[in-house]
Amino acid sequence: MWSENVHERQDEEVRAVYPDGIHEAIAAGLREHLGEQAVVRTATLDQPEHGLTDEVLESTDVLTWWGHLAHDRVSDVVVDRVHRRVLNGMGLVVLHSGHESKIFRRLMGTTCALLWREADDREVVWTVNPAHPIAAGVPHPFVIPRQEMYGEFFDIPQPDELVFISSFTGGEVFRSGCCYTRGWGRVFYFSPGHESFPVYYQPEVRRIIANGVRWAYSTNAQRSQTYKPTPLSAGWYERRADEQA
Amino acid sequence: MWSENVHERQDEEVRAVYPDGIHEAIAAGLREHLGEQAVVRTATLDQPEHGLTDEVLESTDVLTWWGHLAHDRVSDVVVDRVHRRVLNGMGLVVLHSGHESKIFRRLMGTTCALLWREADDREVVWTVNPAHPIAAGVPHPFVIPRQEMYGEFFDIPQPDELVFISSFTGGEVFRSGCCYTRGWGRVFYFSPGHESFPVYYQPEVRRIIANGVRWAYSTNAQRSQTYKPTPLSAGWYERRADEQA
Amino acid sequence: MWSENVHERQDEEVRAVYPDGIHEAIAAGLREHLGEQAVVRTATLDQPEHGLTDEVLESTDVLTWWGHLAHDRVSDVVVDRVHRRVLNGMGLVVLHSGHESKIFRRLMGTTCALLWREADDREVVWTVNPAHPIAAGVPHPFVIPRQEMYGEFFDIPQPDELVFISSFTGGEVFRSGCCYTRGWGRVFYFSPGHESFPVYYQPEVRRIIANGVRWAYSTNAQRSQTYKPTPLSAGWYERRADEQA
Amino acid sequence: MWSENVHERQDEEVRAVYPDGIHEAIAAGLREHLGEQAVVRTATLDQPEHGLTDEVLESTDVLTWWGHLAHDRVSDVVVDRVHRRVLNGMGLVVLHSGHESKIFRRLMGTTCALLWREADDREVVWTVNPAHPIAAGVPHPFVIPRQEMYGEFFDIPQPDELVFISSFTGGEVFRSGCCYTRGWGRVFYFSPGHESFPVYYQPEVRRIIANGVRWAYSTNAQRSQTYKPTPLSAGWYERRADEQA
Repeated sequence: MWSENVHERQDEEVRAVYPDGIHEAIAAGLREHLGEQAVVRTATLDQPEHGLTDEVLESTDVLTWWGHLAHDRVSDVVVDRVHRRVLNGMGLVVLHSGHESKIFRRLMGTTCALLWREADDREVVWTVNPAHPIAAGVPHPFVIPRQEMYGEFFDIPQPDELVFISSFTGGEVFRSGCCYTRGWGRVFYFSPGHESFPVYYQPEVRRIIANGVRWAYSTNAQRSQTYKPTPLSAGWYERRADEQA
Repeated sequence: MWSENVHERQDEEVRAVYPDGIHEAIAAGLREHLGEQAVVRTATLDQPEHGLTDEVLESTDVLTWWGHLAHDRVSDVVVDRVHRRVLNGMGLVVLHSGHESKIFRRLMGTTCALLWREADDREVVWTVNPAHPIAAGVPHPFVIPRQEMYGEFFDIPQPDELVFISSFTGGEVFRSGCCYTRGWGRVFYFSPGHESFPVYYQPEVRRIIANGVRWAYSTNAQRSQTYKPTPLSAGWYERRADEQA
Repeated sequence: MWSENVHERQDEEVRAVYPDGIHEAIAAGLREHLGEQAVVRTATLDQPEHGLTDEVLESTDVLTWWGHLAHDRVSDVVVDRVHRRVLNGMGLVVLHSGHESKIFRRLMGTTCALLWREADDREVVWTVNPAHPIAAGVPHPFVIPRQEMYGEFFDIPQPDELVFISSFTGGEVFRSGCCYTRGWGRVFYFSPGHESFPVYYQPEVRRIIANGVRWAYSTNAQRSQTYKPTPLSAGWYERRADEQA
Repeated sequence: MWSENVHERQDEEVRAVYPDGIHEAIAAGLREHLGEQAVVRTATLDQPEHGLTDEVLESTDVLTWWGHLAHDRVSDVVVDRVHRRVLNGMGLVVLHSGHESKIFRRLMGTTCALLWREADDREVVWTVNPAHPIAAGVPHPFVIPRQEMYGEFFDIPQPDELVFISSFTGGEVFRSGCCYTRGWGRVFYFSPGHESFPVYYQPEVRRIIANGVRWAYSTNAQRSQTYKPTPLSAGWYERRADEQA
C-alpha cells in the first residue's frame, strides 16, 4: 500500500478523518479482508526511493496506489521501475486521485483527465458486471453518503472489463471500477475514496479494494525482466516439439 | 424503420404525442439527417409477415426496431429471417423497449432484462467514447427532460464499444448506447425514447439514431446466405496463392 | 463433465483412443489438476434428461461440454435449463466441436460456424494474454502433434478476453481460447481436442481445461432464478441508504 | 505519411525495392484508393522538426507512421506533440516496425515488443472481424509471398477491435490488424510491410492501409487543446438544460 501521505500532515481536517494516514486506513481494510492470505506493508513518498526500491517491488505481488497533491514529486526513476514491474506481472490497484499519477497515465497512454467537483455529493455505485470477482459480495447498488464528484468524460482507454458505474447528486456518471491487462500485469482503477471523507472505512469500499487486490494478483510465472523476446531461427519449432516430447 | 405500432392505436395519450405513429417520427428524423444518402421505409407488425419479407430484408441495409407490448406477437419465422440477415451483414438499430424484443435477445444470448420505473425522470446522457462516429455532433452531456427510467443491471454482454451512459433523477445509471458486431452485421442499442414522451422529436436523439444507422451500415460485401464455410483440403493455400498471382 | 458419448460407442477407432469415453479422459484431467478443490461428476446424452436435471444443475458450479454428432438430439428443454443456469452464475467450459452445440450458439447469438479440415495437422497454441489465469503454467507455445484443423472466420462475438490463438500446418489461424461473460455466468471456449487423437491426455491441454474451470467458477452470490429486476418506485434510494446506515 | 527514410538511403537492396522511399510507395497507394477524398502529403525524419510542426499536425486528419532504425532519433518534443494531437482527434496508422516507435509505445503504455525472424516467410492474413470497415474488400485470406515474421506474444493492450490475424511459415501467429481508441483519436496498427520486400505494392495491403486511414479519420469535432475539463459547480445542470431549451 503506497501513499504520498501529504494531505494528512498538512491539513488538520484530513488528519481528523485519517489520523494514521490514508495508507493505514486502506491497509487495515486489506488486512481485515485478506487475513492470512496476504502480508500488507506500507510505503510513502518521503521514504528513500519513496519506499519502492527494487527489492521491495520484487517482493510485492500487488501494489495499491494513493496520491493527489504530489504526483510530480514522484521520481521518474521510480515510475520507470514500477512500470516495468507491472508489465512483468505485479498487480496495480489505483485509487481515486491516483488517476492523475504518473504511473497510471504511463500505463494508460492518455491524459486520464476527468470532470470533478469538490462538494458534498452522494455517490451511488452500480455493478454492471455481476460475474466479475471484484463484484463478489458487493451490494447492488451501494451508497457513499458524501464524496467528491468524478464525472465523464474520463479520458482512459475503454476498459477491458468495466465493473462499476457511479452516479452523483448532480446527475453525473463515472466509470468507477475499470480493469486492464498490461503485459503480464493487471491493473484495477477504483475511484471512490477521498481525503476529506471517511470513505476508506466504509465496508463495501474495503471489500472492493480487497477483491481488486485478489484479482490483480497473478498466479502466472512472473517475469523478472522486461519482455525482450529472442528472435526465432528456422526450425525452432521442431526443436521445441522434440524438447516437449 | 420497423415498429409494432400498437400503443399508438390503443392509447389516446400516446397518439397525442405521436399522431402518425412512433415509426413515422423516427423515420422523419432519419430523413432529416440522412437526406439523399438513404431511402427510408417503414413497416409494422400488422402487415403480412410484419412487412419483413425476404425481399424487403434483402433490400434493407439497416433495420431500425421499435417494439414494446407485442414482442410475443412477432413470429419466430420472421425473427429467424431477421437474425440470419443481420449475421449476413444488415445493420440493426434497436431502440428503447426493443431491448426485450425476440431479435435483440436472440442476438445477445442473454435475458436483456433491466431495472425500470415509469415516472417522470430527467435523463442526462453522457458520451464516454468521444472518438466514436455515433457521438459525432452530440453535445456532452445532453438532457432529456422527461423519460422513463432504465437502470442497471442491464443483462447484456459487455458491449464491444460503449458510447453513452445515462443517469436518472433517482440516481440510477444505464449503459444507454451500446455497439456490437455479430457475424457480418453491426448492432446498435440506444435506450432513450418512450411512447409517452416526445423524445423522438428531440434533435440530439434524432442525430444519434441517424449516426447509429450510418455506423451500422456496412460497406463490406454482404453475404446473402448463412455462413457455411467449405472445409479445406490440403494444398488449398498454394492454389489460392496461385489464383491471386 | 457432460459428453454426448456417441463416437466412442459407434466407432472402434475412437474407442481405441478413449476406451472409457472422452468424458472420462477429461474428468480424469480435472481430478488430476483440481484435486480436493472440486468434485468431478460426469453425465451423458442417453441418461434421463441427459443427466442434467434441475437438481444436478443447481449443484453444479461449472459445466464442461463435449458434443459433436448429436447436437440436435439434445432436447430444447434441457438447453433452456442450462442456458438459464449459466445466466444465473454457473460456469460453462465448451470444448472443440461443442462450438456448434445448441447451448453455445444460444449464448453467443451467432452461427458459431468455422472452417475445418479433418486431416493430420500440427497445431501450435500461442498465448496472447499471459496475465490471464487460464494461461497460468502453460508453455508458450505448445504443440499438439496431430489435430483436426479449425480455422477462421469463426463466427463468434469478439471475445471479452482472447487468451490463445492457434496455427495449423496449412497456414490457418484460429482463436482457440475465448472468454465471455453472460449474465452472472462465465463461458470459456477451448478448441483443441478431437475424438480421433489423444489430445485430452496431453498435459498442457489438461491444465488449460482445469484453469478454465477455475476461472469460470464464480464466487459471487449466484441467482437461483432468472434475473427479473423489480421496478423501482420513487424514493427507493433514500430507503436503501437508511437500511445501509 | 511520415517515414524515417533511413534504410532507403543507406542500403542499396532497399533502394532497389523502394527507389523513391517507402513513404512514396505508401503515399501512392493512399492516393490510388482515396483519390479526391484526401490530400496526401509526406514528411521525413531529416526535415526540420521531422516535418511535423504544429501547423502540419493541425492540418493533418490522419498520420501514417513508418520507422525502424531511427526510433530513438525522433525528438521527444515531436513525440509529445503528436501524442497530444492524437488524443485530440487526429487518426494514427502505425505500420510494421513502427510498433517500437516512441509514439506507439507512448499510446499503448506497454513495451510493444514481439517475436521476430528476418527470413523469407510466407504470411497469410485472415480476417476475424468481417463487419469491420477496415476489412472491406479484403480477400479472406490473402497471402504475402515473402515477409519478415512477426509473432506473439506481442506486448500490446488487448485491442478494442481485432481485425486481422496472420500466420507465418514457421507456425507463428500474430495479431496483425489492431484498432484502438485513445481520447478523441483512433489508432490502427497494421504489421504487414517490410523494407526488403515489395509488400507496399501489393493491392490487398494498399487497400487495408487506405481503409485504416478512412476508419481513423474522425468526423467528430476535434479538440485543439489537451482535454482539461472545467470543474463543475452546483447547479450547472439546470443551467445547461435551460440553455438547451
